Amino acid sequence: MRRRSLITAAGVGLAGTIALPAAAQGLPKIEWRCASSFPKELDTIYFVAGFVADRVAKATGNRFRIHVTPAEPSVQAFGVLDAVSDGTVQCGHTASLYFVDRDPAFAFDTGLPFGLNARQQNAWMIGGGLDLLRNFMRSYDLVPFPAGNTGAQLGGWFNKEINDLSDLRGLKFRISGLGGSVLERLGVEVENLPGDAVYGAMKSGAVDGAKWIGPYDDEKLKLNTVAKYCYYPGWWESGSQLSLIVNRSQWERLPEPYQVVFTMACAEANAWLLGKYDVVNVPALRRMVATGTVIKPFPQEVMTACYRAAYALNDEIASQHPTFARLYADWRRFRGDIYEWFRLSELALNDFVLAATKEAEKR
Amino acid sequence: MRRRSLITAAGVGLAGTIALPAAAQGLPKIEWRCASSFPKELDTIYFVAGFVADRVAKATGNRFRIHVTPAEPSVQAFGVLDAVSDGTVQCGHTASLYFVDRDPAFAFDTGLPFGLNARQQNAWMIGGGLDLLRNFMRSYDLVPFPAGNTGAQLGGWFNKEINDLSDLRGLKFRISGLGGSVLERLGVEVENLPGDAVYGAMKSGAVDGAKWIGPYDDEKLKLNTVAKYCYYPGWWESGSQLSLIVNRSQWERLPEPYQVVFTMACAEANAWLLGKYDVVNVPALRRMVATGTVIKPFPQEVMTACYRAAYALNDEIASQHPTFARLYADWRRFRGDIYEWFRLSELALNDFVLAATKEAEKR
Repeated sequence: MRRRSLITAAGVGLAGTIALPAAAQGLPKIEWRCASSFPKELDTIYFVAGFVADRVAKATGNRFRIHVTPAEPSVQAFGVLDAVSDGTVQCGHTASLYFVDRDPAFAFDTGLPFGLNARQQNAWMIGGGLDLLRNFMRSYDLVPFPAGNTGAQLGGWFNKEINDLSDLRGLKFRISGLGGSVLERLGVEVENLPGDAVYGAMKSGAVDGAKWIGPYDDEKLKLNTVAKYCYYPGWWESGSQLSLIVNRSQWERLPEPYQVVFTMACAEANAWLLGKYDVVNVPALRRMVATGTVIKPFPQEVMTACYRAAYALNDEIASQHPTFARLYADWRRFRGDIYEWFRLSELALNDFVLAATKEAEKR
Repeated sequence: MRRRSLITAAGVGLAGTIALPAAAQGLPKIEWRCASSFPKELDTIYFVAGFVADRVAKATGNRFRIHVTPAEPSVQAFGVLDAVSDGTVQCGHTASLYFVDRDPAFAFDTGLPFGLNARQQNAWMIGGGLDLLRNFMRSYDLVPFPAGNTGAQLGGWFNKEINDLSDLRGLKFRISGLGGSVLERLGVEVENLPGDAVYGAMKSGAVDGAKWIGPYDDEKLKLNTVAKYCYYPGWWESGSQLSLIVNRSQWERLPEPYQVVFTMACAEANAWLLGKYDVVNVPALRRMVATGTVIKPFPQEVMTACYRAAYALNDEIASQHPTFARLYADWRRFRGDIYEWFRLSELALNDFVLAATKEAEKR
């Protein structure tokens, strides 16, 4: 640093660009690659990495540039963790629950069944959850940044009605993460497929049903053309947080201004995706209903059985995996606390407004 | 561009810091002042402006610095709009609903009674609402940036129980914005006071009740020591969005990298405040209950009367103010749409989880 300052001072007379502070003078040109786990057809979830790249480039006068590639043969959707961990790419955009087979603790970076909603997940991140996740992912040489949330999703697509628990037994269903493990306990045969393979599997009959995200993305993947019944709510992740995972040594090498710019870009993208979905999901929902989709709530019996199976599963995993147990203890305390507050505030008000709106429509 | 590149190239051999792009070379040193409408005791809502200033400084290597001053005699809490508009300060952090007497359309920048919750407000901003607000505020030479949301608030503090509508008549109550106009229609005498005056007014008996924000901030302002009854939910703004308002000509003079950095910092702060409140409100709520605060829901009769009065008021204002009418038309359409989606997703799941959690506690 000292040497660089002196040299620059010497060069001032010639170059005419004086008095740049050390931080601005020394900022290097950096090019990163970012592998996305998501199909490039999706201008929502796939676009998040591009949103971050655009913000970072503009904020740094194009000195720090990130090149995004969609899920492709060199780095498959589910290969993003390894590719970032081993430095094949500097960062990746993914849903960490794709990696629960490595360690179930990855689930906390996305969301647990019947867990925190998007706002509660954000609050947990700020209130210590992100520190716990980063500590856990340190052993994979990863630094995770929340970058996009889908909110509560649709409950998925089925080629038949789900009237009771018996309808789940033997059903072949595409889902990732702990939600899949819950369904397995209820007799479902679970398939874990990347987004770009879902339509083909539904169409060929390789699976009887699938969950992807919500009305807008599901319509883009044409899932409404290969299944008639769409159930709600998507309890699998409650509010699915996506992550930009960064290779740790690459991260540590970034100058502070770039670290701050990258962090802010992820934070903005995190909120942007949720807002974008909330804007585009309703028109998509209406289009699908207009072309024959039947929207139904999961029967109470199914919801209750899934809820119980989910928390029994959490307890079992915690007893076997110390990494999961540590995160689960904090997550569970936080979940209890925040529902205590939401009961008096957000949910009390939202439920009243929903009921009052319906009442006003009747009159 | 061309000339500068040549000069820099010429200086390379000497300076060793090559190829700084024009944007990085030319970035000026800028110092702004930011007036906050909020008392400096509050490390939540007051801290937002400091959060933005810190991010901006770090991302620009301290070249763009923002100095925050709390509500003080030179720029009173309610004087922030004029101070930014006339260029006394470059920007300010405030709740736009303080200015509904200038034009009721300012309410849309904060939130309407029984309106959008925090997430829905964010979505409306992304889905065109922010463009409409900026267009409206152009005549005040202001560019608004969402910067902090409180979520649904507490329903306020009262020195007596509110059992029916008759208990509201003649009550002197501190509240700002359209929520106050709704209460006036139900016989309440409304006082509009800045945050740092609320405790004194309650203690002296100048008002019988007051709303501020939520458990954490209300405890900091010691409102729980001057009133026993705390009601929920705070329907006044549903999810109150705060804003960093920037003087338009100052904004247009900023180089693009600074504009992008400032925008991202506000976006991060917007999410940060909501998360911070969600983390700190529960412990504060428990402390207050432990020291004698009685928490009660507003009676259904009161909620319903307020709801009806609120929408009657909106319609009346819209018929008299074209600025309000334009924003209201879009807001109302958006509100209807998003509740259609939330009913199937967020609210369906949240309500199930809340009920299931209570059920699990019983067993």
